[in-house]
Amino acid sequence: MKSLFIHDAIIVTQNPLREVLRGNILVRGGKIEYIGKEHMDADYTMEANGKIALPGLINTHCHVAMTHLRGKLDDISLEQFLERTFRLDSGRSDSGIYNSSLLGMYEMLDSGITSFVDLYYSEDVIARAVRQSGIRGFLSWVTLDEDKTTQKGSPLKNADKFISDFAHDDLVTPSVGVQGVYVAGDETYLGAKDLAEKKDTLIHGHLAETREEVYNFLNQHNGERPTEHLDRIGFLNPRFLAAHGVWNTLHEIRLMGRNGVKLSWNPVSNAKLGIGGMAPIPEYLGNGVNVSIGSDSCGSNNSQDIFQGMKFGSVWVKSDRWNPAITNAQSILDMATINAASSLNRADLGSIEAGKMADIILLDTRTPRLMLTDEVTAVSNIVYSADASSVSDVIVNGKLLKENGQLLEYRSSDFQDSEFV
Amino acid sequence: MKSLFIHDAIIVTQNPLREVLRGNILVRGGKIEYIGKEHMDADYTMEANGKIALPGLINTHCHVAMTHLRGKLDDISLEQFLERTFRLDSGRSDSGIYNSSLLGMYEMLDSGITSFVDLYYSEDVIARAVRQSGIRGFLSWVTLDEDKTTQKGSPLKNADKFISDFAHDDLVTPSVGVQGVYVAGDETYLGAKDLAEKKDTLIHGHLAETREEVYNFLNQHNGERPTEHLDRIGFLNPRFLAAHGVWNTLHEIRLMGRNGVKLSWNPVSNAKLGIGGMAPIPEYLGNGVNVSIGSDSCGSNNSQDIFQGMKFGSVWVKSDRWNPAITNAQSILDMATINAASSLNRADLGSIEAGKMADIILLDTRTPRLMLTDEVTAVSNIVYSADASSVSDVIVNGKLLKENGQLLEYRSSDFQDSEFV
Repeated sequence: MKSLFIHDAIIVTQNPLREVLRGNILVRGGKIEYIGKEHMDADYTMEANGKIALPGLINTHCHVAMTHLRGKLDDISLEQFLERTFRLDSGRSDSGIYNSSLLGMYEMLDSGITSFVDLYYSEDVIARAVRQSGIRGFLSWVTLDEDKTTQKGSPLKNADKFISDFAHDDLVTPSVGVQGVYVAGDETYLGAKDLAEKKDTLIHGHLAETREEVYNFLNQHNGERPTEHLDRIGFLNPRFLAAHGVWNTLHEIRLMGRNGVKLSWNPVSNAKLGIGGMAPIPEYLGNGVNVSIGSDSCGSNNSQDIFQGMKFGSVWVKSDRWNPAITNAQSILDMATINAASSLNRADLGSIEAGKMADIILLDTRTPRLMLTDEVTAVSNIVYSADASSVSDVIVNGKLLKENGQLLEYRSSDFQDSEFV
Repeated sequence: MKSLFIHDAIIVTQNPLREVLRGNILVRGGKIEYIGKEHMDADYTMEANGKIALPGLINTHCHVAMTHLRGKLDDISLEQFLERTFRLDSGRSDSGIYNSSLLGMYEMLDSGITSFVDLYYSEDVIARAVRQSGIRGFLSWVTLDEDKTTQKGSPLKNADKFISDFAHDDLVTPSVGVQGVYVAGDETYLGAKDLAEKKDTLIHGHLAETREEVYNFLNQHNGERPTEHLDRIGFLNPRFLAAHGVWNTLHEIRLMGRNGVKLSWNPVSNAKLGIGGMAPIPEYLGNGVNVSIGSDSCGSNNSQDIFQGMKFGSVWVKSDRWNPAITNAQSILDMATINAASSLNRADLGSIEAGKMADIILLDTRTPRLMLTDEVTAVSNIVYSADASSVSDVIVNGKLLKENGQLLEYRSSDFQDSEFV
């Protein structure tokens, strides 16, 4: 299938004017070629019949290889959670990592995620699952100090090798990750930065997630806080996409804004782990930090679902600030699409515009859940009413991966007796 | 179809032992006749093939006739929300109320809700939609002071007539409602209580939802708080199912527990309206108050979805108290099933046990979202991973209303050009 014509959709473009248009989309060679009222011939035509067409959602933080941990780490203390996760993460087999990752990618596609950012080791194995599933994967090989890792060899060298081996691919974008200040010292942070600059990649890592990690650091560093420290050693830079940021002070948020650091907000995971309230999102936004949304792992969320992230995130901020007007659906949808793309430095993703990559999802407005949606209510209804059950069709890189509610390549029987450890 | 056999399910019984069993269910004449390993003949056999069988979810607070307001009242101040809602609620046509209600009921069925509690006027019209949709409706005709209502005639007399007209029906259970202390004085509250006792019904109403309503009351009543006042006048009683309860003090919570008052917690709506934090759920539970979950209206939620209520509710409590172990999946599932049934005084609902009404939903464990679910992880995965997209089959009163993902009686074309105002 070289070209694909989507007929009669409510197109939520997410273009600079944030236009919502009723019309058609032509996709050719993995890119969006045309948006408008014209009828065009194509190898395949999809009758949208008033469905919403939306840029595919972008999940900016997860650990997809941990999908098999769903339902196994719930309702326990944070200490128990971290201890068990660490134990379960080490010593896994390649096939376990591959199967768990592929399952998580199908879950993401099923719920309308077309790109995701991953932080883990063995990203070469995860990259194979990306190619199998057809999703777009931004894969960050995690680094940490050599005396604290269970990786074979040097994490920085492993990351370097991964980035070298996987350069230039439509679906796989390799990068370097850093686990967090609790296991990575200055040398690791600065090594990761050097590597990212040398290879022109993203840096992805945890930052200020839990109270304990921040106060332990502070006690060991004469009262210097983690993000202040990373600023002082010259690590903060625009390549850095930081996950969580719950425990950053206003001063640290300003340092992030000034240095172009991006935030991946993980509202469901942060709440479920009870790590101490909400990341100060209004302050991040007010200080020029690009905010996007992540799912985090299946141990702490337990769904690879950005619709939940948008809705829960938005209503949580409203509640936290006693102000229902403090967030609006458009700005939340921006986080999950165009702003997320921008935080990945990908100007060709995150909106439906001619010349952009064809990552498009359709939401069925004939379901009871979205019935009566029109051009005026589309954005509100995407954020506050739609969910994974609304996603009828998914296109990534011009390829149709879900059609009329069916994931085309997914077979549950492939997973039934597989290894996941 | 007189009998229905469900073969090979993971049955989350919600029985007193909270057993999760792999086996079969026989339904006959609207009731559950058998649960176990035996294979039985029936008019119709469903191959569950490892799907989860769960008691249908119970939504204990909504205004289903407001479904058409979805996407029209978002991201505005609470004052604007209340003013617009009041304006949009008055002067509606019967066909508008009917169509909006029917659409909302299909949405509930689609997402696994088999019973709901409604608070509105014109419940006779809503009752017709209940019969059309096949859902179980606990319909509370709202009362308020005569000088504050837009209802024709006396609200209490209207409620009385509704209860008299609709007594004894498998699907419709009528009751009396009270809007809230801001529009209902002692006479209305005590009149509603008398009516409920005379007719042996539930009383359903709003209580302590917003800061403004509580402090206005307090200022007008020499510092007496609403729930204290309702206790003093003798209104609090076990028939009363109160919605929200966000602004109750510990003293008022104790009064509720002592008087057998039930709470319908509406986490998504409460957060979205930014009314001032979370209802103190651990304190309600600690003082013997039966807590269940409501969706509230499509203006303030905007989904009739108890899966969202369970997940968001549970993680919100964890975050609020900085303690991920403070809630657990089993107790949250209890709120949405067996405890909700108990708050409706319906010992024949809320669990899968022989002799109970056959309100059963199946969740497809072959989807990526629930893949790998087994008897051990079933309850966790229902609360933290399942969503409306997981609900493949819905049975209410022994009748199959959704099968393999398709709502059997719903036609979107029936709603496309209908009146909703």
